[in-house]
Parts: sequence; C-alpha cells; structure tokens
Amino acid sequence: MKLKFSTRALLPGGFRFAAVPAGIKVPGRLDLALGEAPAGAAVAALFTTNRVAAAPVQIARRHLRRSRGRIRAVLVNSGNANCATGSDGMRACLEACEQAAAGLGCRTWEVLPASTGVIGVPLPVQRLLGALPSLVGTQAASTGAVKRFAQAILTTDTRTKLAAAEFRLGRRSVRLLGIAKGAGMIQPRLATMLVFLFTDARSTPRRLQALLRAACRVSFERISVDGDTSTNDTVILQASGASGAALEGRATHLFQAALTRVCQELAQKIVQDGEGACKFVTLRVEGAPSTAAAERVARQVANSPLVKTALAGADPNWGRVLAAVGASGVAIEANRVDIWLGGQAVCRRGKACVFDEVKARRYLRRRAVEMRIRLGHGSGFSTFWTCDLTADYIRINADYRS
Amino acid sequence: MKLKFSTRALLPGGFRFAAVPAGIKVPGRLDLALGEAPAGAAVAALFTTNRVAAAPVQIARRHLRRSRGRIRAVLVNSGNANCATGSDGMRACLEACEQAAAGLGCRTWEVLPASTGVIGVPLPVQRLLGALPSLVGTQAASTGAVKRFAQAILTTDTRTKLAAAEFRLGRRSVRLLGIAKGAGMIQPRLATMLVFLFTDARSTPRRLQALLRAACRVSFERISVDGDTSTNDTVILQASGASGAALEGRATHLFQAALTRVCQELAQKIVQDGEGACKFVTLRVEGAPSTAAAERVARQVANSPLVKTALAGADPNWGRVLAAVGASGVAIEANRVDIWLGGQAVCRRGKACVFDEVKARRYLRRRAVEMRIRLGHGSGFSTFWTCDLTADYIRINADYRS
Repeated sequence: MKLKFSTRALLPGGFRFAAVPAGIKVPGRLDLALGEAPAGAAVAALFTTNRVAAAPVQIARRHLRRSRGRIRAVLVNSGNANCATGSDGMRACLEACEQAAAGLGCRTWEVLPASTGVIGVPLPVQRLLGALPSLVGTQAASTGAVKRFAQAILTTDTRTKLAAAEFRLGRRSVRLLGIAKGAGMIQPRLATMLVFLFTDARSTPRRLQALLRAACRVSFERISVDGDTSTNDTVILQASGASGAALEGRATHLFQAALTRVCQELAQKIVQDGEGACKFVTLRVEGAPSTAAAERVARQVANSPLVKTALAGADPNWGRVLAAVGASGVAIEANRVDIWLGGQAVCRRGKACVFDEVKARRYLRRRAVEMRIRLGHGSGFSTFWTCDLTADYIRINADYRS
Repeated sequence: MKLKFSTRALLPGGFRFAAVPAGIKVPGRLDLALGEAPAGAAVAALFTTNRVAAAPVQIARRHLRRSRGRIRAVLVNSGNANCATGSDGMRACLEACEQAAAGLGCRTWEVLPASTGVIGVPLPVQRLLGALPSLVGTQAASTGAVKRFAQAILTTDTRTKLAAAEFRLGRRSVRLLGIAKGAGMIQPRLATMLVFLFTDARSTPRRLQALLRAACRVSFERISVDGDTSTNDTVILQASGASGAALEGRATHLFQAALTRVCQELAQKIVQDGEGACKFVTLRVEGAPSTAAAERVARQVANSPLVKTALAGADPNWGRVLAAVGASGVAIEANRVDIWLGGQAVCRRGKACVFDEVKARRYLRRRAVEMRIRLGHGSGFSTFWTCDLTADYIRINADYRS
C-alpha cells in the first residue's frame, strides 16, 4: 500500500472538465469553469465562517442540503465574487445553475456554484449565461482540461495550484486531484478561497465530510496571508466512485493521509503565491498547553505586521516574535520561551542568546524559512504557514479595483 | 464650570520635569526623562496585557503595590524597551530606580520606571546611570522642561504628543497635562505605549484608578496602528493635589470629562503619527448588539490590511469593509448593514447603492476621513481611530534595528 504524491494533474476517473472566457475578467481570459461527474458524485463541502457570505456560498449550502450529498457539477467563475449583491446576486447565481443543469441534463440543485473576485459589484450574469453553451458540452477527461479549469479560477494569483495523490487498494488504483486559488483575503476559517477536490474513490457523503473536515483542520485552517477572512471561501470534495474502491476500513486511513497531504500542498501553494509575498514561512509552535493554544500563538505571530515586515527585511528581530507570542492571549511565562530561526537558537528562556547575526540574516534571505517557537508549557504543537509582508502587497491592494 | 482644552503644555502645580541625552539612542538626542512630584502624588496606572511584560512594567507594578498609590517620580528612557532581557534587565531597571530615588531623597519604590525602544537588546545601564546625576537636580516647573520630557520619550514618532485641560472648581483652578509616545506596535489593550498624565487635583489612588480606567476604555483602547500589542504599554496618572481642589462629588464628573478628552486627544495623535500613516481614519460603528460588539467590529475593520491598503489608495472599496464586518465574529445579518464614507452612503442593506465614485475618491484623498458602519442589530456603538497601511510602514519596519 503505497501513496504517490504529485504536484501535477493526475486525472481521477469519473470526472470531466471545461473552461471558457466569458468576459467577466478582461476579454479573452479564462474565467468560467465546469467540473462535471457525468454519473454523479458523493460530495462534502466546507464554506467560509464569515457572516457576510457571498450568493454562491448561500446557494451552494442550499443545494448541498437539497441534493442530500450527491451532485453532478461545480460551476465556478472568477473576476466577480457575487458578494454583497443582494437578491439580484442570488437570482443571477441561481439562473446560472439552472441553465448549466439544463445543459447537463440534471437538477438545478445538483450544480454547486462558486465565485471569486471583487465584492459588491453586480455579477455580469448575461455574459456568464451567454458563455454557458460554449462551456457545457466541451467537457473533457484530460489533463489539458484540468489545467484550463485551474487557470480559469484565478484572480491575482500568479500561477495555477494543483496537487494530486494516487494509491492502490488491492488491485484498484485510487486517484485524488486538488485544484485551488488563493492570493489575498486569506485567513480561512473552515475553508479557503476556492478549492476543488476530485477522487474516484467511492464513499458516502457523511464519511467524505468527516475526512474533509479533518484534512482542512491541518491545512487550509493553518495558513494566513493577510489575516483577512474571505466571504467566498469554499472547499468542495467530490467522489465519483469510478475506481470501484470504497472508502471503508483501512482504505479510509490511507485516503485521509492522501487527502491531508494534497490539502497541505495546496495550502502551502496559496501562501507561496500570497499577494506580494517573497518568502514562504513555516512556523512550528510546540510546548503549548494544547493544540488550540499552539495554533492561536502561531496565528498571532503569522498575522503580526511587525514580524512579517521584519521577515521581508531579513531582520532576525526575534523580540517582535516574542511580543506577538505574549499578545496571543495564551497564558505563557515569557521566561520559558525559546525561539529558533532555522537551526539557530536566537532566544532562550525569553531573552537573547548569543547567535551569529550575519548567519541569521543570510538564512532569512532565503525564499523559504522556518521559525520554531517552544513555549515550555505542555505538549501541544501546531505547524502554520504564512508569508512576509512587502511593499508589493500594498501596491497590489491600494487600488485593486482599477 | 467651564472646561478649557489645549494641545499645548499647561503646567499643573506640584510637578517638575527634566530630560537629558544619555546615549541610549544616537549620541546627543534626548532619551532619559524625569517627571517629579516634589511633595508626592497619588497615582493610578494601567499596563500592557501582553504576557511578555518588559522589566520596567514588572518593576512599576511592584512599586505601585509597595507604595500604596503614592509616588514621587516617573523615570523614562527611550531607545531600548528593556524587554526580554531576563534578570539582568530587571536588575538594571531596579538600579536606575534606586539611584534616581537616592538623588531625589525618596524610597526606591516611589519611582515608577518606563522604557520604549527595541526588544531583546540589553539596556545600556551604565550610560543610563552615568546620565542620572545630570538629570536629577535639573528639574524645572516650566513648559520648556515639559517639552524636553515629551521629546525624550519618542522613538520612531515624528512629533511630540501633548494635550491638556483646565477647569475651575469654585475659586480653584485644576489643570491636567498629558504626554504620550506612539508610532508602531500599537493596539493597546488596557493602555498604550507610554502615556504620562499629571494633575494638580487632589484624589485618592483608588478614585484615580477608576477615573483612569474609564478614560482609557474610550481612548487608548479604541485605537490601532498595526494590531500589534506592545510589551511596554504604560499609562500613569499622577495627582499632586497642589491646586487644593479635591476630586469629590461634581468635581469627579468634571475631571472625568477632562481626562477622557485629554486621553482621546493623545490617542488620536498617536494614530495620526502611526508609522507610515498618511491618513487618519475615524470609524463609527453603530446599531450593534452591544458596545463590546461594536468595538469588536470596529477593531476588525481597523486591523484589516485590505481595508487599510484600500484607504491608502483612496479606493472606496466598501466590499472589503463589509467582509471585515462579517469576519469579526459578531452575529450580524449582511443585509442589514449600511456603510457611509463621509456623508455619502456607499452600501445599503448589505449591497452597493448608487454613489458618486469620483466624489468618494476625492473624499478619501483627504488626510482625515470618517467611515460610518450601521449594523442594524441594536443600539450599541463605538468610535475607533486608525490609520492607513502604506509602503512606508513596510520600509520603516523591514529593518527597524539597523
């Protein structure tokens, strides 16, 4: 029983993909995508916990209930989040699902919608509907189609984000494919911007949901680019069953490992492609009173603008890290805290220790760095991924809409 | 009974001030300050809630208990926070208090210390001790001395921060003077970086503490520059009693109003001088389930990097504001939320309303702007002050130490 991971597209059985330019972004760029399970798929999904949920998130939740966990397709657009668009936005989203369903020959609630882009601008629904005929009917079970799908869901992302896994169950081979988009407004709470996962394993929706929740807890819920939680976060996992392998017994554990790894890979890709980010930072917090406490400390450090700017400047200013640890609300004693940058300790028992500053600066100039924080208050630990805060983030976001 | 406010120094009776360059910052710059009450003063104080508290915060807390609320002086240095410096840092701080007390002819615990600057670097205590003889003995009851004190406590601040109030009680005149420093690592929880308040009213320490707590709750606890909570936040209020006017009965209310106004004035000055800030932003949240909920929403909006960068770019991107409202954890319905930029509504019932975008952009280019958020969920409200996030913040903090 061996797992094989890949960051390229591995096509799972039972799915077809398509993408077209609908003119929602600048003309000619792919911005409308379809992922179809021709014979249907069991589905699990997680959505943003932001109280301001976009229309597609509200409709997807409704369709999920109505379909009792078996769907036919996901319909995704980029360039417009269809959020804060009122009842017009809800109608537009529903109409898109209806017409896609008509084209696919299924029920409206068997289509889950998702959107990403600017908030508060009406969705150009006529353009979307006008592009549907050229989308529905061109699905293909090919890696080329997968790549077009991955391209079509991007906004300020600079590259597509794919991760896949494959493992054998007896004589059967199970494949899992994940596609994500990220960039900004990233501090997912229960999900991240947009993530689509496809497997040809067979499963009940309930089991799928448990597996997805466990994987997200240690992947998308452990990253932050800017501490802003989006209104459109969506993670959807579909299982077509085409491989003939059922997620039961030992297979569940194997699938959980594959799913977690694929989700972590995608989560890390989102951070690596964070808006303006130059540096990928792995935070390892250990010795916490609990896992939740470790995560809270990690999140506070990951979201500290002073820590993030110090990282951008390759400045081993561990005092800011310690200050963030202390501000996290977790009851720790400062004089038990140790901090490492890469292999080098920079703070022991809450105060400076002798370290090679030149070496530390050189280390921090790398594109990927690791920071370890030992709290000395228990055995709780957490790994968290984040990026630095650069002037480019400001440039990108000071006038995103124009 | 009339209150008079001033942003210049009004000298309260019973206090003397002094400041010298001790060589903790670059040579020649004022970095060591003393505020003395020759006949003693009742005192109230609030400190950071950061679990990593600097040595001067720990010692000041201890001295406050030991002195039972009556002290003789505050001793402040800038250029070094004396934080994460272990037992050496504690000893250095104590020694400075001891020698200052010897010079002033009082007990060690009648001196409250405070420090601001870099974290994790040993305090150059010999320089500090070497400068004490030239500091103690040069105190003066003059506005010139007050200005030197205000100068000596700054770090990356670009200007001194003073606010004062005066009111009459019968034939007696009561004065209140406040001096602050701010700039970065500003999201005070119970206090802000360093604030010193002096009054010649007469009061018990217990009453003084209640007055200070109430004033801080609507001033220093309602601002954020970068969402980072400092390890050295300290607010100290001293009452010399030199005016002969006691804080009893009606006088308490009058003093509370004066104190609150002075604290708000200083809090706003800290935000206006936030690192890299170009814009002073007043957030008014209303219609919240409670005051705490209003404050939570305001804090979430104030700390959103996407809102702050949109403000820097004068982009009326209200969708980001709505997303931050939704992410605050306060249970609101998106379709009840209204948002105004200045006098112009930009979002009604959770979606875009028709507004003049050119006018909105022109408004957002001002140095001081106001944003009003009506939640439609009750009568709780809160005013909060913050600033924009600019590339200059990154520049200042990417390599603060060098």
